[in-house]
Amino acid sequence: MIQDKQESSLYSLVKKSISEKIQSGLYKVGDKLPTEMELCAEYNVSRTTVRLALDQLALEGRIVKVQGSGTFVSKPKISQSLSTAGKGFVDQIIEQGYLPNIEILDLRVIPADKSLSKKLKIKENDPVNRLERIRYVNDEPMQYEIAFIPWHFAPGLINDAEDCKNSLFKLLQLKYNVKIKKTLEEIEPILADENVSKQLNISRSTPIFSLETITYNDNDDPIEYSEAVFRGDRYKFTIERLYG
Amino acid sequence: MIQDKQESSLYSLVKKSISEKIQSGLYKVGDKLPTEMELCAEYNVSRTTVRLALDQLALEGRIVKVQGSGTFVSKPKISQSLSTAGKGFVDQIIEQGYLPNIEILDLRVIPADKSLSKKLKIKENDPVNRLERIRYVNDEPMQYEIAFIPWHFAPGLINDAEDCKNSLFKLLQLKYNVKIKKTLEEIEPILADENVSKQLNISRSTPIFSLETITYNDNDDPIEYSEAVFRGDRYKFTIERLYG
Repeated sequence: MIQDKQESSLYSLVKKSISEKIQSGLYKVGDKLPTEMELCAEYNVSRTTVRLALDQLALEGRIVKVQGSGTFVSKPKISQSLSTAGKGFVDQIIEQGYLPNIEILDLRVIPADKSLSKKLKIKENDPVNRLERIRYVNDEPMQYEIAFIPWHFAPGLINDAEDCKNSLFKLLQLKYNVKIKKTLEEIEPILADENVSKQLNISRSTPIFSLETITYNDNDDPIEYSEAVFRGDRYKFTIERLYG
Repeated sequence: MIQDKQESSLYSLVKKSISEKIQSGLYKVGDKLPTEMELCAEYNVSRTTVRLALDQLALEGRIVKVQGSGTFVSKPKISQSLSTAGKGFVDQIIEQGYLPNIEILDLRVIPADKSLSKKLKIKENDPVNRLERIRYVNDEPMQYEIAFIPWHFAPGLINDAEDCKNSLFKLLQLKYNVKIKKTLEEIEPILADENVSKQLNISRSTPIFSLETITYNDNDDPIEYSEAVFRGDRYKFTIERLYG
């Protein structure tokens, strides 16, 4: 047990030290890290300790292990502002010089279950559009999302698959005349499960963001509920708050 | 391998089903879940599969395992709004009917290292106040934070340990006449390491929020840099965005 404790404290220190070397710019984006053996010598710790530190840094997206080539400092995370309303995924990605893309996995109409009917303030079994999408940045899957829109707010959506490759909000506003007033979002850190790890091509147990959003129209009716997960190893959220 | 794949897909389904029963209110806060054996029978899966599902639900804070008593549905997460500027930890916690508390772990003056000097726009080795605190809600540790304030913005801070048990922003404003203009925050989901798991009394590998904040005064000088981690199993962030 004491051995275990020492081992895990040491791995934290090694992890912190490598993090700081990346933060301070001593190791730069794309730089190759020293080998495991070299790190063992540098920190005077076991290979197990070095591997624990590197594994956790990789899960958090600080470094990338490339089979047969070594370990490299990751590109900076993609940043998404949570303080600007109205500026969607596509605009924010383009601003950072990346290429956004949206893939439609599924679009169909389902009956509302109990949980959906509560969130969307409709009756159980009322028809709901279910739209399942993946958002890509430079061909890397970044976000997996399922959106639910009560049928009566967008009765023809089932035929709009092509348009759903762009902003859903713009489609709802322009084609279905929905007046979007506000969104309420809940953010939690969770672990990628089997389905998410497959959809986003990441290891299971990667820490990810879960976002649940309810969107309201100008009549305060919920017009959309969505569940989205964002890769935590490639994404960070930013907030700007102004004080009086 | 095929066995493994099936096992992990099954655990996702069991996890999702239990989550939905909690969300829909079929299992309520404080309710005792069926035993592992009962869940094995209900879902017709192995004990390993049930345990995987329960372990991940526990890490994410949906359920709590109580040694010798069973597994229970967790209290709802504590919610902190990221859209209201100026309403700090203490006020938001009290509004939800909880009792907030702040413990000072350490307060001292250190020389700025390279990374700090960059963030705070000061010279390397310039003196910096380092304040390490834990925030509690109803006696449960929730947030672990280290704040760095350049010495010259708060030259007597080292003697203010007692006042640091309340809002640091209010102290800086009232005693040191700092005019706070805005904060820029970066949020990432990470895994609890050894130190954090000890400070917050959670399992290692619990998904947690990491928040890095830089606070600016009315002259756009960085007057504080802080690194904070929030328990993801007991905390969620909320955002409200208004559309034009």
